[in-house]
Amino acid sequence: MKLYTYFRSSAAYRVRIALRLKGIDAEMLPIHLVKNGGMQLQADYRAINPEGLVPTLTDEGQNLSQSLSIIEYLDETHPTPALLPNNALDRAWVRSLALAIACDIHPLNNLRVLRYLTGELKVSEDDKNTWYKHWCVEGLQSIEKILANDTRVGQFCYGDTPSLADCCLIPQLYNAQRFKVDLTNMPTLQRIQANCLALPAFALAAPEQQADAE
Amino acid sequence: MKLYTYFRSSAAYRVRIALRLKGIDAEMLPIHLVKNGGMQLQADYRAINPEGLVPTLTDEGQNLSQSLSIIEYLDETHPTPALLPNNALDRAWVRSLALAIACDIHPLNNLRVLRYLTGELKVSEDDKNTWYKHWCVEGLQSIEKILANDTRVGQFCYGDTPSLADCCLIPQLYNAQRFKVDLTNMPTLQRIQANCLALPAFALAAPEQQADAE
Repeated sequence: MKLYTYFRSSAAYRVRIALRLKGIDAEMLPIHLVKNGGMQLQADYRAINPEGLVPTLTDEGQNLSQSLSIIEYLDETHPTPALLPNNALDRAWVRSLALAIACDIHPLNNLRVLRYLTGELKVSEDDKNTWYKHWCVEGLQSIEKILANDTRVGQFCYGDTPSLADCCLIPQLYNAQRFKVDLTNMPTLQRIQANCLALPAFALAAPEQQADAE
Repeated sequence: MKLYTYFRSSAAYRVRIALRLKGIDAEMLPIHLVKNGGMQLQADYRAINPEGLVPTLTDEGQNLSQSLSIIEYLDETHPTPALLPNNALDRAWVRSLALAIACDIHPLNNLRVLRYLTGELKVSEDDKNTWYKHWCVEGLQSIEKILANDTRVGQFCYGDTPSLADCCLIPQLYNAQRFKVDLTNMPTLQRIQANCLALPAFALAAPEQQADAE
């Protein structure tokens, strides 16, 4: 198994956590998102991932894109430890947490979008940072509210073992802290973050631990 | 089963298609996204959906958010007709198509984001429309390229029966055409769209067919 990754990519970070949780030793192939105008946009990578986005997981001769789809695939093909609950209502809940991050926070704040704001739209650095914080804080506060009021929450988003939701939450919190988003009014997220980062799977998947880290 | 919906919401439209394909007669509860500053942001709806987004599906006394999670739930609890393939690699592929729309196109182009651009960032109407088209065209062209080169494509995105990918594609194409995005260089998408709209499940889920349509 091979993973095309970039150390700072939230989406790649999600998959790195899942691989570690599953104990899968995938080969890491760095795709630099900044150098040379972005290696992900070049023809050879586009042949693997037509969207020009990381990550891509290569397995069984096929190139799989989209981090959430990749994690579902890993969970189906390597069922232990499970990253989704064993009943439909709870699975829906865990998936909805992951999607609240993957659809409602991260797409607004990733590199290509921030570049479009300051490039094509000539938005100032200050306004760009306000944009970042706006969507990040709004999204994370909603998730804090959901988690703070749900008895399914344990040491992690769902009970006492990590799930797909934690695979998405930790990279988003990492990203938020890099942009100096204040998490003090999000005690549940902070508690879950501390519990996750105490596990080697999460710690070793962190950007700083990657071979391509700068 | 109840669905909190808005006729023009792409995400609600996805779920309406899935409900129709499954033959589930859910009660539709309209949440107007524009009137009164947005009914979705008011406290009574926030109690049901803390993110303040549509859709929400209520089933078994629980409120489920996030359209893709809801469709996976419907597929698990009402397995026929299946909206996902029966093998892991193809499931990953269908999910990746759905996520390419749900994560990489729609979040950049929905109402709250367009409002932020013209409001907080004082972006002109022209620049807002260019932004819309940029992400929409870039995303749809990638999907066209993926589908045009994959033998798994049939009458629909995956073979000859509709899947989760079609549930996402049709609302996105509807949205694109509303914003006058040119689809002439996307023949595969156009062909799949025609095949979908010929089915009552897709036709009856369309915005114009909803009780809250204006």
